[in-house]
Amino acid sequence: MKRLPHIAIVGATGAVGQEVLHLLEERKFPLASLRCLASPRSAGSSLLFRGENITVAAMSETALDGVDIAFFAAGSDVAKKYAPEAASKGVLVIDKSSAFRMDPEVPLVIPEINPHALHAHKGIIACPNCTTAIMLMVLAPLHKRFGVRRVVASTYQAISGAGAQAVQELLEESRAFLEKEPYYSTQFPFPIAFNVFPHNSSLLMNGYVEEEMKLMQESHKILEDASVRISATCVRVPTLRAHAESLNIEFLRPVDVAEAYAVLESFPGISLLESREKNRFPMPTDASGKDAVLYGRIRQDISHPHALELWIVGDQLRKGAALNAIQIAEALQK
Amino acid sequence: MKRLPHIAIVGATGAVGQEVLHLLEERKFPLASLRCLASPRSAGSSLLFRGENITVAAMSETALDGVDIAFFAAGSDVAKKYAPEAASKGVLVIDKSSAFRMDPEVPLVIPEINPHALHAHKGIIACPNCTTAIMLMVLAPLHKRFGVRRVVASTYQAISGAGAQAVQELLEESRAFLEKEPYYSTQFPFPIAFNVFPHNSSLLMNGYVEEEMKLMQESHKILEDASVRISATCVRVPTLRAHAESLNIEFLRPVDVAEAYAVLESFPGISLLESREKNRFPMPTDASGKDAVLYGRIRQDISHPHALELWIVGDQLRKGAALNAIQIAEALQK
Repeated sequence: MKRLPHIAIVGATGAVGQEVLHLLEERKFPLASLRCLASPRSAGSSLLFRGENITVAAMSETALDGVDIAFFAAGSDVAKKYAPEAASKGVLVIDKSSAFRMDPEVPLVIPEINPHALHAHKGIIACPNCTTAIMLMVLAPLHKRFGVRRVVASTYQAISGAGAQAVQELLEESRAFLEKEPYYSTQFPFPIAFNVFPHNSSLLMNGYVEEEMKLMQESHKILEDASVRISATCVRVPTLRAHAESLNIEFLRPVDVAEAYAVLESFPGISLLESREKNRFPMPTDASGKDAVLYGRIRQDISHPHALELWIVGDQLRKGAALNAIQIAEALQK
Repeated sequence: MKRLPHIAIVGATGAVGQEVLHLLEERKFPLASLRCLASPRSAGSSLLFRGENITVAAMSETALDGVDIAFFAAGSDVAKKYAPEAASKGVLVIDKSSAFRMDPEVPLVIPEINPHALHAHKGIIACPNCTTAIMLMVLAPLHKRFGVRRVVASTYQAISGAGAQAVQELLEESRAFLEKEPYYSTQFPFPIAFNVFPHNSSLLMNGYVEEEMKLMQESHKILEDASVRISATCVRVPTLRAHAESLNIEFLRPVDVAEAYAVLESFPGISLLESREKNRFPMPTDASGKDAVLYGRIRQDISHPHALELWIVGDQLRKGAALNAIQIAEALQK
């Protein structure tokens, strides 16, 4: 019988780390022990797991000694600082940050789409950006079946993507607005309550922000096809934890709407939610806390004979982050 | 000397009607008298105009007798019921509803774009849908200069588009959410606080909602060019009164970003708002209560050599509704 793994969560007190903890319990992930690690600031606090309190320890060079699988749910800096050494000591690192995603030595994996890439790992496996993961769950099966030429995406991104404190900011700022009190943003450069703004990741010389370029570059790597042209406009909206995306997909040839529904119907990890009678399609409140990426509203684009349009919503913290990481670990445990 | 006109606002107590009233005062619109009309339910209330209280009267067959210009800021039903007869009696009707927009006998006008169409009126002039008006303020000058082949638009539409009560619903529902109290939507079919959903106008057989089809059809009429292919995904977001739109515009030939900025720079009624250093582009909070449609973030689309992408925000109640109506009256008074 296979030995149960010792597990660690790096960044256990953050929004993604909390979701990893929650999913390890919900999915009854088989493990020998669980270590919760965070910045020295959060060390000493305690987290509940399977009815027991786990004291959070400070991340350090030796904190992962004896660990088999480490879920890195912290930023790129933490991943770059600790992941390579941990991997060299035999820890399997599953990293949610962008640190290693485009590294040719590191597999970038969505288990439903490119599980074969897992086997080439050298100790580090990367998870895609949340916006990428959610989009590819519908784009990959359509591309495989029909061939995608070009995607124009506009996103409606929840605040959880900026972390647990940003979620708190949205709530506090909304309350202040309703009570006509002043509020000073600390997590975002601009007000987010009752407002929207283009994504606040770094703006590059080409006019795209990093978030938008990730969507293109990571999609090319995961689809193993750089011929798919992708342009995205990523926008922050005042929702809590599920991203919505409006996708315009141009195929190599005309694709029947019913054929597209049929292809998605048989793909795992996604779920149709629509009632045309009720004009009812996926909403962030539907997807929050759910594993499946929800899709609907597939229609022939009236502006292009080869294009379809559709609307998707996925929990940014689940398939967009923690769930995908745990699915990678589960696939490797099999 | 020309006689000053007698003015009426039909639907004076609604979100658009209130804005018409406000703008008539702000712009010192020359008038001999102002009559405020509304449904019997709102009749008897009073509205402040130029320091005087005007008692709201109930709309009726005779309520427009003696009026020179009537701003219709009510729904299609009211416009269909009263506008043709008023026009036949010599009242100039400027209608914000969709009732007559696509009627070949009725000019559909944005004064900065197709003022020549005004002269063919037969007593009724229509204003475009808010989403159309805001988009065309940047699309029309670009189309005139470079020739637009196709537009893919995704919108982030404020709640004011659904009326004054809908704005109240967003605020009340947000407050209930923050206080963890139940809330039952009356203005929308779905929760809008901390949520987004595809536009709730009627869904047609082709999978588009009326709001999206209006954007295409009205644009063709105003541009006087049905060759421009347009597809839109219209989405309600929890903002108060300015719509944002993500536009992907494919031209007949490659267009330089600097050329596009130069064309928009010289067009009236729009205003550049961007700081690339600060990753700062137009937001609904910038445009609210402002006349100008704000634009920025123009960039070469990395997925298509002939396409540019840009981001615009405009006050739905101003250029998207009341301001455009008053500009029509001003143009005709000249």
